[in-house]
This record gives sequence, C-alpha cells and structure tokens, in this order.
Amino acid sequence: MTAEVQTQAQAQSPVQASPADTSADAEVFADTVEAVVWLGGDQFETQSFDRPELAEGESLIRLTTATVCGSDRHTVRGRRPGACPSVLGHEGVGVVEDSRAGLPLGQRVVFSVTSVCGTCENCGRGLSAKCQSVAKVGHESTDSGWALSGTYASHIHLPAGVAVVPVPDSVPDAVATTAGCAVATVMAMLEAAGDLRGRRVFVNGLGMLGLTAVAAAQSRGAAEVLAFDPTPQRQDLALFAGASTILEEEVPTDVDVALELSGTTAGVETCVASLGTGGTAVLAGSVSPGPNIEINPEQLVRGWRTITGVHNFEPHHLQEAVDFLAADGGNMPWDRILGGPIGLSDLAREFAEPSSGLRTVVDIEG
Amino acid sequence: MTAEVQTQAQAQSPVQASPADTSADAEVFADTVEAVVWLGGDQFETQSFDRPELAEGESLIRLTTATVCGSDRHTVRGRRPGACPSVLGHEGVGVVEDSRAGLPLGQRVVFSVTSVCGTCENCGRGLSAKCQSVAKVGHESTDSGWALSGTYASHIHLPAGVAVVPVPDSVPDAVATTAGCAVATVMAMLEAAGDLRGRRVFVNGLGMLGLTAVAAAQSRGAAEVLAFDPTPQRQDLALFAGASTILEEEVPTDVDVALELSGTTAGVETCVASLGTGGTAVLAGSVSPGPNIEINPEQLVRGWRTITGVHNFEPHHLQEAVDFLAADGGNMPWDRILGGPIGLSDLAREFAEPSSGLRTVVDIEG
Repeated sequence: MTAEVQTQAQAQSPVQASPADTSADAEVFADTVEAVVWLGGDQFETQSFDRPELAEGESLIRLTTATVCGSDRHTVRGRRPGACPSVLGHEGVGVVEDSRAGLPLGQRVVFSVTSVCGTCENCGRGLSAKCQSVAKVGHESTDSGWALSGTYASHIHLPAGVAVVPVPDSVPDAVATTAGCAVATVMAMLEAAGDLRGRRVFVNGLGMLGLTAVAAAQSRGAAEVLAFDPTPQRQDLALFAGASTILEEEVPTDVDVALELSGTTAGVETCVASLGTGGTAVLAGSVSPGPNIEINPEQLVRGWRTITGVHNFEPHHLQEAVDFLAADGGNMPWDRILGGPIGLSDLAREFAEPSSGLRTVVDIEG
Repeated sequence: MTAEVQTQAQAQSPVQASPADTSADAEVFADTVEAVVWLGGDQFETQSFDRPELAEGESLIRLTTATVCGSDRHTVRGRRPGACPSVLGHEGVGVVEDSRAGLPLGQRVVFSVTSVCGTCENCGRGLSAKCQSVAKVGHESTDSGWALSGTYASHIHLPAGVAVVPVPDSVPDAVATTAGCAVATVMAMLEAAGDLRGRRVFVNGLGMLGLTAVAAAQSRGAAEVLAFDPTPQRQDLALFAGASTILEEEVPTDVDVALELSGTTAGVETCVASLGTGGTAVLAGSVSPGPNIEINPEQLVRGWRTITGVHNFEPHHLQEAVDFLAADGGNMPWDRILGGPIGLSDLAREFAEPSSGLRTVVDIEG
C-alpha cells in the first residue's frame, strides 16, 4: 500500500527518475504565480509571487482544485492562531509542473499537510507528524522562506519533506482534495483503532472526518457503526455514508472502537464511557485547549481499555486515503458533502458566508 | 515463542499424545490429596480431598513449590473479595501426575491463572483473560465444582481451559512459580507498550511486578529505565534488576513508556504526566476501586499519547514469561526477592507475619 508514498527527499533515490529527466527547463512558464493572501481578520488579497526557484528535492504543483477545511475557518475567525500574512488552504490537488524530486511532469497528485526533516528523533521513530522542525502546508507566513505554502493559489511549492501521492484518474478532483487532511487523518485514527472486522464502532461528531470515519469503518468490515451528531443534516449524511444507527442523546455501551471527532468535552467523555471490554477510544477532535475530563483507572485496567490521541498523519496514511477514495469513496454522499464550487476570487465571501456542505470546493482554474 | 502454549483443551489435538498414552491408570496413587483451606479471616486448615476424577481435557499436577502473591494477602486481610472456603495460591510449579489432556507424565510445568472457555466473544478476539465464563486458579470455593483450584496444596486440578507451559530445567522452582502471575502480567504490559528498543521507560511501583518490568525492559533493549518506589529496600532491588536511575519525588519527563504498578492515584497521575510525544502509559496496578484522575484531551491528541489498561494475561504471555526467566531471569536479585522457604503448615503464620522478601516461597514437599 505504501510503495508509492514518498517525501520529496526520498524521491531522490537512484531508482527514481533523475531531476534531469523531469526538469521543466525546456518549457516556458510565466515568471509569476498568483495566490490569495490572508491579511488577517476578514481581509484577503490576490497577490503575484515570483515563480519559485526549486532547490534539490522540491517540486512546483499547478493546483486545479482545493477545498476549505474547517480549521481554516477557525483561523480566519481568530479561534486558532495562524501565521499572517499567509496563503491558507491545505487540501488540494494538482499536477506536477516542475520537479527536482524526480516526480513525473504532468502527474496528478495530492500531498501531505506536514513538511518534515526525516532525521529528528520523532521522524526516526515513525512519528514524522511530530517532526521537531515541522512546517505545514497552508500554515506558513509569506514572509517565511516558504511563501507559497497553501492551496488557495495557482501553484503550491512543495519542500523536500512533503509526502506526495499520485491520484488515479477515477477519483474526481474535489474528492481527491479531501485526502490530504480529512481522510488521511481518519486513516491514522483507524490504524490506532486496530482491526475493525466484526467490531462495534461508535463515531462521535459527523463533520467531514466523522462521515469519512463512518464510511471507512464500514469498508473495513465493522459489524455495526453507531453515529452521533446533534445536527439533523449531518445525521442524514451519516446514514448515506453507511451508519447502522444514528444515536440520540444516549451513551452507547459495549463499544469496541470509539472515534471522537467532535472535539467537545462531552464527546470525549461519551466515547470513554461507551467502551466495552478491550475497547479503544481514539481521540482526534480535541485540538484546542479545553477542560480536563475524569477517567477511572480501575475501569481501564480491569477492562483492558485504551484511550489514545491522534493528530495529523504519516505519509502511508495519505496513500491509504487515496486508496480508500478510489475503492470506497463512491459510497460517500459527495453531492451533499461538497459545496460550491467557488473561484479563488470568492474566498473572502466564502469565509464571511460559508456555502452549504461540509467542504466548499475551490475551482482554481475556473 | 508460543508453540508450546496450549490450554488443556487445545492439547486434545491429534498431534498431541493421546490420553491413553499418558493416562496414569496403571500407577498407584493415594486416594486423597491435601490442601490448606482458607476459612476466612486468619483461619486456615489442612484438609484432605478425594483425588479428583479427571474429565476429558483435565490434568492433575503434583505441586512442588508455590509463592505467596500480594493479592492473596489482600484477600486474607479482607481488602479484596475472595471465595471462601477456598484453596488460595495462584503461583505454583509442579509435575504432571495424571492427564487427560495429552500432557506428558512427569513434565514440569507452570500454568495460567485463568481457566477460559475458548469460545465466547472475548476468547474469540484474543482477550481470553476476560472470558465471559472465566474461573481462576486459587480463587474458587471448595464448594464449587473446582475444589482443588489453588497452589497451597499437594495437588492442583487443572480444567481444560487453563494454559500450561513446560519449564526448562535451568529455571529453579521458586523462580518458575512467579511466571504464572507476576511475570506473565508484565509480559502482557510490555506487549501493550510496543517496541522498547532505544526507548526511555519509567517503572512506577517496585514490587515483584515492577522489578520484573525493570529487568524485562532492559532485556528488551530500553535505552534507559527510570524507576520509582518510596521504599528504600525496593529502590536497591531495582538497581540490582537493572534500573538506570532511581527517581526521588520528581515527575520524569519525555518518557516513551510508563509502566504503572503501584495502583495508587498519584502513581497513575505521575505516569500520565511523564509521557513525551508518542508516549504510552500502561496501567496494571489499579485493580481496586479508587478515585478518578483527570486527563487533558488536547494533550493526548496533539502528543499522540496513549493510556491503556492491562489485567491478567493471555496464554502466549505465560510462554514469554518462562522464556524471559530462562534467558534473563538470572539478572534478577532472586536471593533478595524470595523469602522463606516455609512449609504448607506455616501458611497461617505467614499471612499473620509476612516473611521478608517480595515473594515468600512455599516448599510444598518440604
């Protein structure tokens, strides 16, 4: 499954096409590229940037489609710290326009949200999401060395430490974009959850990640997928995505795997309380400071129960995300998940007045 | 590692010696066996029992040595519910005197603490320690169908659902007895902890399990083993067992694996607080009701941290325990760990006035 996953740096190995094979030197491109720069508050401005000079291991991707992740909305509303001015957007799909990482020109790709060093202690132990010098797609200031870090732009500049995965033609652009944040994070959660075959799975919080978790749990053989979200529209989507049961207010019992995506204190408490013997709660929604919750050590010990946290993902989860979208993504109600499409020039309005749907599609070439 | 592990029922497979090969029908044994029966409070009485008729899949083990686990002391002091009257003792070693499970007569063995059905949902998922009809060595009433369940006796009657593992001659009796509870539980904890090579490990609580955890973490390649216990004598033992550092009151930081064996609220809190990025706290000491502790969901999520509980063990952990004792057990300070030996008739006094050492040896044939 992971054979095609590589960070740009890894693509430098001798078995890859050499930079000379794929260099775009012979082609003629405009000297500048365009990006929508977030200036803080509700202010956005389209700016031109010099076409970046690629260093060894880097690539330039011409973006075709992006989607608006909820965390960007939190950033713009000031609920989450974010570098500013910056090019936001960390879900996107595009084609390789130039590469000094051996990527084939014209290849359609998605990419990881993290740029990692590959050599620090955390990278060395397979926890590159926690790289000690991590930088992030769509999170870096235009004043940093990585101005074109985001997907609300004509092009994204990928450093050597970003994992890149090819996208099969069968996966539409707007679907493929979700791989690079939402779907890959769910893949990391499912790895932490273990084998789901025959299991009773509870998904709490039915945004983009929760719906993906419902569909992925079904595709991995869960016997039953219970789902909760207070929003009726999301409850409907979860049924389309394959949920067995939509819960009301009750706490489910005897759950084998609880996937927490609401980020609420009550959600975490419900997930922990729902676990049966040998059960595992995988928390991913709690990415903002919040109150503590109480747990009972004896219940964990006597019940062989586990509580584990997941944040972002590893390169192989991005490959799994693309594989999932290619194989089972068709089971998801994309026509109701995806809002828009809008153009890049509509972004300011989109942040002020969100489109319906869980992910607004940004048609970059439109 | 697990090839030799089998529950008695599994030993019925055609590749095992058939019951006819190993039946003791031709030999002559006394019609009765002896056991020390706990009558409640501080009262013990040696009683004779009819030599049990073995059903298909069962074995009779002539015990040579037992050890007194701390949980028996809790039971006798009324701090832990226990069937009564009963034959206590769940750590023991002996030789197969009779078997309808295909066990070779005269084979020296240790055995699991749980007798399991092998067919319920929990058994089916590899969590036989939580078998829905579990019975336990040294925990059953003499009025139940399993009178000779404990190791404070001349013989123990093993139902089909108890895992049995042969003991190499190189492992002394008193050392081997610890496999069946303390050491196998530590093996289950280490499986939950994952690969320890190069890891920073913290062991909290340095009784029999904690000392074993220190020695086993070293033998599995931990880079550093930090240990804490308030008792100076136990601190010394931990150094002998291979601890890198004995902690004072401070909470260690950046720990990869924290093994909690004190069962105290403060111990659980310290273990959780000690975890670095990607760290796992394995709790096993909290087997009695106690207060809740607080955890912070964001810290778990952003740090990919895990808290997991372990109680008892699976059959393959018993095999790993014997393997560990055979390979690395010699590194443990057994002369200071083991107290006694005492005889079966000394048990009442032993419970009233414990011998020094972490495990009092009961020389059953003495």
